[in-house]
Amino acid sequence: MNILVVGSVALDTVETPVQKVTDVLGGSATYFAAAASYFSPARVVAAVGEDFPLQELDFLKQRGVDFAGLQIRKGKSFRWAGRYGPRPNDRQTLLLEPGVFSHFQPTIPEQYRDSEILFLANIDPELQQSVLEQVRCPRLSCCDTIDHWIRTKRQILLQNLAQVDTVILNDAEIEELTEESNLIKACKSVLERGPRTVIVKKGEHGAVMFTPDAFFSIPAYPVELACDPTGAGDSFAGGFLGYLAETEDFSQTNLRKAVVYGSVMASFTVEKFSVDGLKGLTHQQIKERFTRFKQITYFEC
Amino acid sequence: MNILVVGSVALDTVETPVQKVTDVLGGSATYFAAAASYFSPARVVAAVGEDFPLQELDFLKQRGVDFAGLQIRKGKSFRWAGRYGPRPNDRQTLLLEPGVFSHFQPTIPEQYRDSEILFLANIDPELQQSVLEQVRCPRLSCCDTIDHWIRTKRQILLQNLAQVDTVILNDAEIEELTEESNLIKACKSVLERGPRTVIVKKGEHGAVMFTPDAFFSIPAYPVELACDPTGAGDSFAGGFLGYLAETEDFSQTNLRKAVVYGSVMASFTVEKFSVDGLKGLTHQQIKERFTRFKQITYFEC
Repeated sequence: MNILVVGSVALDTVETPVQKVTDVLGGSATYFAAAASYFSPARVVAAVGEDFPLQELDFLKQRGVDFAGLQIRKGKSFRWAGRYGPRPNDRQTLLLEPGVFSHFQPTIPEQYRDSEILFLANIDPELQQSVLEQVRCPRLSCCDTIDHWIRTKRQILLQNLAQVDTVILNDAEIEELTEESNLIKACKSVLERGPRTVIVKKGEHGAVMFTPDAFFSIPAYPVELACDPTGAGDSFAGGFLGYLAETEDFSQTNLRKAVVYGSVMASFTVEKFSVDGLKGLTHQQIKERFTRFKQITYFEC
Repeated sequence: MNILVVGSVALDTVETPVQKVTDVLGGSATYFAAAASYFSPARVVAAVGEDFPLQELDFLKQRGVDFAGLQIRKGKSFRWAGRYGPRPNDRQTLLLEPGVFSHFQPTIPEQYRDSEILFLANIDPELQQSVLEQVRCPRLSCCDTIDHWIRTKRQILLQNLAQVDTVILNDAEIEELTEESNLIKACKSVLERGPRTVIVKKGEHGAVMFTPDAFFSIPAYPVELACDPTGAGDSFAGGFLGYLAETEDFSQTNLRKAVVYGSVMASFTVEKFSVDGLKGLTHQQIKERFTRFKQITYFEC
């Protein structure tokens, strides 16, 4: 199955307690596509400025990622700068310069409009809605967002959530969206709005998946040297939807395996800066970490 | 196997966003014994004042808990008051009146000195050390503590940790003890001091168990109406050690099951105020929640 992601391709400046990197490859669509590429290469719709070092995307093109939907526009690329504290879940945004992204219109190329899996990364909910109108009839649509859009474009965001099959949020976002601090109640509240699956990413505390019939919970992979958490959530989504695209099976059993593969890909991401943790992996490395998840969570019944 | 717990039997005043209860039954030894009693009744060493409503302990006596080691002293009982925020992991201590506990000397009755499993609840590390000297040769010894003792009696606490088999801490405590924010590194650091097992309780985020050979991680039971988190950690320890006492099997396989039973007992505790969540449970209810843990965490490999 083919996957379409609409999100950002950006340049990030990241400070951690250990190191700082400047203008490195980032963006939600980039992380998503890098993680998904190990299962099923994605089609990317995004915009960058003329200053963007396009050769940075070569490793993704070599992995089959399709950038026919990448708009190269006059102006500056989207830049984000952030600082992490000793706990990877503590993030402070230092700078957010949308550049060409402030006028981005996600025109979906004709050959992408039949995409079977659609991932709406954390872009403006109005743009997400425009994408939902253009993509004809995805077999699975999935929506992410960030606190900024929950605060500023809540109504249109809620309309989008009602139109997609799966919502992927982090724990702070779902609390803000539903105004409910209990995770179970928050998930139920989102399900009532329309989606049939809600996934909550809890960073170092793992992830949960909530459907009307089942609750699945998995810890985070035990990473000893968490370097840079940027992009972990988008890598999770890439692993999750990439695995579903590869296997073409949306059963509860397979959704759970997809959540584990999402967690595996996020664990590789946080071990290095930028998308470096997602470069040059082997399928055996990915499978080994999946098996390790089983060992970590297994108990006899 | 018989279990000895040395800890507090106290009166708690608890404020949550929903309700406030005053002078209700609490204390680490109380919660521990209540949870353990469904597997293997414990022997309790603690002290209360003459003001203590002893009939409150009748339900535990009826469940076989042995209070021959409970000292009734002139003066006031240990009182604790705390307030929880909307997130159960946010706790503020409002009052701590040790009362008779400030002069408590844990004299272990002769008939308790052969106890096979020993739980040192969060009492003064000097008292913990005194207990370690009195109990002859436990098959399994386990130590808990709180931030206050980490700050004020660090050296003697570290000596205690080196003498026990298992350390049970929460995530904030292990970070403070080891000065290491990465959970894996923190667990390794504790293991290096002597214990062969470290368990970290993460409240609403579950628990992890770390041994030299294995890492086990389990989410929290999804409680929709978390009422009062007080005593969840001691209930966890009670379920964990109670199950080990009942099964007399300290293998990795059984330790993992014990962690799940610990999490099950903690989940019952948080659903009601005081120890009410641990009253009148059936073995079937406990087993059902254990099975539900399997359903929540299971994925095909």
